[in-house]
Amino acid sequence: MDAKQDPYTWEGATGWRRYRMLRPGRGMYYDVKRRLPYYWSDIRDAFTYRTFAATVRMYFVNLLPALAFLLDMERHTDGFFGVNEALFSSALAAIVFSTLAAQPLTIVGITGLISLFNYTIYDIAVRQGIGNLYPEFLAWVSIWAAITHWIASFGNLCDYMRFITDFSSNAFGMYVGIIYMIKGVQELIAQFTQSTHEAGFLSVVVALCYWATVYALEMLPHTVVFSPVTRKLLSDYAYPIATIFWTGFVHIPGTIKRADVLTLPITRAFYPSTDRTWLIHFWTLPVKWVFVALPIGILVTLLFYYDHNVSSIGAQARQYPLKKPAGFHWDFALLGATCFIAGIIGIPLPNGLVPQAPVHTDSLTEYKDKLVVSHETEDDNGQPMERRKKVFEAEMVVEQRVSHFLMGLALIGTMTGPLLIVLHTMPRCLFCGVFFVVGWGSIEGNGMTQKVIFLIKEHRFIDPSEPLLQVPRTKIMLFLLFQILGVGFSVAISQTIGAIGFPVIILSLIPLRWSVMPHLFARRELEIMDALTADSDVVLCSLGGKPVMPEVALERKKRGYTAEEEGDSSHMSDKEKDNSGETESPELRRRLDLEQSGRGSGPYTAGKHD
Amino acid sequence: MDAKQDPYTWEGATGWRRYRMLRPGRGMYYDVKRRLPYYWSDIRDAFTYRTFAATVRMYFVNLLPALAFLLDMERHTDGFFGVNEALFSSALAAIVFSTLAAQPLTIVGITGLISLFNYTIYDIAVRQGIGNLYPEFLAWVSIWAAITHWIASFGNLCDYMRFITDFSSNAFGMYVGIIYMIKGVQELIAQFTQSTHEAGFLSVVVALCYWATVYALEMLPHTVVFSPVTRKLLSDYAYPIATIFWTGFVHIPGTIKRADVLTLPITRAFYPSTDRTWLIHFWTLPVKWVFVALPIGILVTLLFYYDHNVSSIGAQARQYPLKKPAGFHWDFALLGATCFIAGIIGIPLPNGLVPQAPVHTDSLTEYKDKLVVSHETEDDNGQPMERRKKVFEAEMVVEQRVSHFLMGLALIGTMTGPLLIVLHTMPRCLFCGVFFVVGWGSIEGNGMTQKVIFLIKEHRFIDPSEPLLQVPRTKIMLFLLFQILGVGFSVAISQTIGAIGFPVIILSLIPLRWSVMPHLFARRELEIMDALTADSDVVLCSLGGKPVMPEVALERKKRGYTAEEEGDSSHMSDKEKDNSGETESPELRRRLDLEQSGRGSGPYTAGKHD
Repeated sequence: MDAKQDPYTWEGATGWRRYRMLRPGRGMYYDVKRRLPYYWSDIRDAFTYRTFAATVRMYFVNLLPALAFLLDMERHTDGFFGVNEALFSSALAAIVFSTLAAQPLTIVGITGLISLFNYTIYDIAVRQGIGNLYPEFLAWVSIWAAITHWIASFGNLCDYMRFITDFSSNAFGMYVGIIYMIKGVQELIAQFTQSTHEAGFLSVVVALCYWATVYALEMLPHTVVFSPVTRKLLSDYAYPIATIFWTGFVHIPGTIKRADVLTLPITRAFYPSTDRTWLIHFWTLPVKWVFVALPIGILVTLLFYYDHNVSSIGAQARQYPLKKPAGFHWDFALLGATCFIAGIIGIPLPNGLVPQAPVHTDSLTEYKDKLVVSHETEDDNGQPMERRKKVFEAEMVVEQRVSHFLMGLALIGTMTGPLLIVLHTMPRCLFCGVFFVVGWGSIEGNGMTQKVIFLIKEHRFIDPSEPLLQVPRTKIMLFLLFQILGVGFSVAISQTIGAIGFPVIILSLIPLRWSVMPHLFARRELEIMDALTADSDVVLCSLGGKPVMPEVALERKKRGYTAEEEGDSSHMSDKEKDNSGETESPELRRRLDLEQSGRGSGPYTAGKHD
Repeated sequence: MDAKQDPYTWEGATGWRRYRMLRPGRGMYYDVKRRLPYYWSDIRDAFTYRTFAATVRMYFVNLLPALAFLLDMERHTDGFFGVNEALFSSALAAIVFSTLAAQPLTIVGITGLISLFNYTIYDIAVRQGIGNLYPEFLAWVSIWAAITHWIASFGNLCDYMRFITDFSSNAFGMYVGIIYMIKGVQELIAQFTQSTHEAGFLSVVVALCYWATVYALEMLPHTVVFSPVTRKLLSDYAYPIATIFWTGFVHIPGTIKRADVLTLPITRAFYPSTDRTWLIHFWTLPVKWVFVALPIGILVTLLFYYDHNVSSIGAQARQYPLKKPAGFHWDFALLGATCFIAGIIGIPLPNGLVPQAPVHTDSLTEYKDKLVVSHETEDDNGQPMERRKKVFEAEMVVEQRVSHFLMGLALIGTMTGPLLIVLHTMPRCLFCGVFFVVGWGSIEGNGMTQKVIFLIKEHRFIDPSEPLLQVPRTKIMLFLLFQILGVGFSVAISQTIGAIGFPVIILSLIPLRWSVMPHLFARRELEIMDALTADSDVVLCSLGGKPVMPEVALERKKRGYTAEEEGDSSHMSDKEKDNSGETESPELRRRLDLEQSGRGSGPYTAGKHD
């Protein structure tokens, strides 16, 4: 089936049929119809080594940050959340999404932002004098969130995700990266206050070394040392290697062991961390507070709407040659279901993991080291010199749901008594290292970072094929300024009681991009600096097709096209397209893509991940 | 004057005139005659900014390791050596060598190896029951060393330095680097035993961060960020910046300040650290022990013969376009004088600093960032692509003696009371960082490291112009094996009471290279893997001219040349030279040099130093 010809489209719809809310479930129906035929192949295709490697890698990449956030939540909610809740939530999400999701590549779990939400709500509850009703209040927030999730997904509202460009998703990635780094530092500080200073300083050493270890191992595939198999093996198992090594390190008898760093606190297997039953008695909450929970629930939905869908797009980013279709509406409804379940049993709400999502796809990608031989002719020396370099090329992705499912089973296994005791040996400072690895990954490969580096580079050493050279420096700075303001406000508000309002700031970048920026920048400038975050047909088919960029619409309007023609560019003949500059030059696209994959990014992942 | 036509040569000498020892002082006479005409220009040429930058940089690069070794010596000699002795020795060497040396670029000061010698002698003295006579015994070792220095320099024995190739000097550089790293770790461990574990772990953090700071700042000129001036400024002052920052860091009030890391111990200004007069009463040593000191004195001379001259060659390495001539014999006699003075007043004997020597020349070098535009044609795409890269080119060296002299004055200034108190604020862990920076610099850029990296690289990604590709892998491994054995034995012996014997091992690599290796390797293999460490005419003129390599002599012998012809290749016509393969292909030399400067090395320095 050609994804371009997908029947899910709103183009050409007239009358009441144009209104998405009036045709509930249409997106979800097509999501299922589109993906269901692949279900059997999602299992059959899994029998390769990559599935195993991806399972191990994702187990660690999912579990470690989840535990890290758990520590953060536990500290800030007086112990309401513990290891059991974190594992339960991660396992629930993994089992549900691996078996039922339209896009099983999207890893769902505990994020830093839900941690931020949970303890900000706790602060609010305590300030309002209902600290003892926190579990019930949180349950209602989750219930409202679930309801609004379902409204959004049945109302086909995920379509609006196609308007997200790198402008806002880069800003979001940067925000998430910074929050992770801050969390790492906060967790390190907690070592000093909750244990001795001796343990604190040792924790700093271990956290930094853990960071360096994982970073170096994950960098290996980009070098040419050792054989390709060795490089890939070491980087596939970077987390387990570093985790086992540094966990062992803090238990070396003598000076280090006596420093007695804090380890992960655990409680009885399969029981809630506090003295309660799993089911929260949410029906006991006074009606007044039920309605106070409504706006907060909507804020959670706003956050998840952006966060989950962006991480889903991240898992299906440009640089991965995916063949199987996406299904945003269905998956978002599913997320509503996990919100509901998680809410009434009092575990953190899982959602898509922005920095980790592409890691799953990446670890399922078969890469090939390609040798590129080029003949370099220096200007002052006519003789061509043979140069060899390595190009790292994605050949195919093992698209399946088994690795996700096995990872879920492994998480359930981790909830059992014996494995909880293994977890208990892990030093808490190791999680600071995890924060640093994941956070830095999100900052280093970010489009904002790349633009900043471009700006501080000495001009004459930049290859003339660099597309950014065609944009005036002041324009690049202006573009960055908007992003930096967005990130800055979000980070600042996250440190206050108003933290739960940050999704509004991030979301407000989208209308800014669509309505204001086309008037400040020329079309070509925007095309070079920005791009649709979701731009492959297999992804866009679930979002109602590719939108016309506002700068294109504006340019066309100036040239006198009518409003109707704007809606569908296919009305124009090819010639008209060329004249209006409709299509990007394929050469420019090729270079932009080269740049993107060369620098290693896409908006969310670290350079080393792709 | 053409350095090639230097009158100091032994070629063509006959009868008793061929014996170097029978014409004492000949080398020294020509050293002075050759260099004296430049004395005025050595002062006049100094009025540039680079002199200032070099003064500041060398002050730190000389002072910090000296203090680091001082800590090592102090701990192992029960406090006989203290900060005052270290400063005195460094200042003495700087003033003497900056004003009187034939090659004022060679920085002379306290090395790790003299520290090793001094405390090994202390161990021996204590074991022999003359621990109380240690100062007198050490004075006699120094006096014997001074005498043998003078014998060597008057006997023109420095000529044999021209036989040193990268084979042994790389091994020596690696040995020194490893010893520095070990010293850094030992000093860190001392923090735990001499202070609290809290201070110990904080020390580890500071040492690692200091290392990272200096490393990153010194890397800057090799990047293209910021302007060339900013890059150079930050790297020129990498040590002061890092030192001031991290010294301040450990004094931040609160948790860090309370950890109370050890700082540099100081005593009363200008007085010896122990309760004694400056002059050692060396005449009170029983005659028996005077003669026991003789062989140890000879070992010191062996060490300095190699260590000092190699560091002098390092300061005049290939990659620096030096114009003024060297003077090895004169400088070695001068070193005898400083040995004598240092010995009778009981301060550590200064000698040439192997890792730091090229740093001085480097900081006096005017570099230019050259833009190289090349046109890359990939095989599968006919269109050439313009690529820009930066080449870092040495334009000229500010050859003068003022920076060295000013650095000496600064050291004397540091000996005064107020500045001693400033030194007292410096945490000792910072010196561990210095050990790591300097030691790692010596390992990273080492020829041995480069060969190992070549071996583990995946073959197909290596540029075909890489000369090592022409040598069978087994031969490279064999070459490395000899070096690794030499380094391994030296490091092992350094940990024992036999440590003072290690110069014998290093020196034995030279006859190995000259008599055994030409039989194991083909001439071309040796030409690619090895080269004379001193190979420019301005350096070789003081050593009696360029030697004929043994592999060349062997090849010529096989072809039937007589022994006399071997001695002087100038007897052959150019045609004969070509036929016998006498001269290296200029293309090969060019590539080897490119490789060397590209990878940033020369045998002793870190990649970042040149």
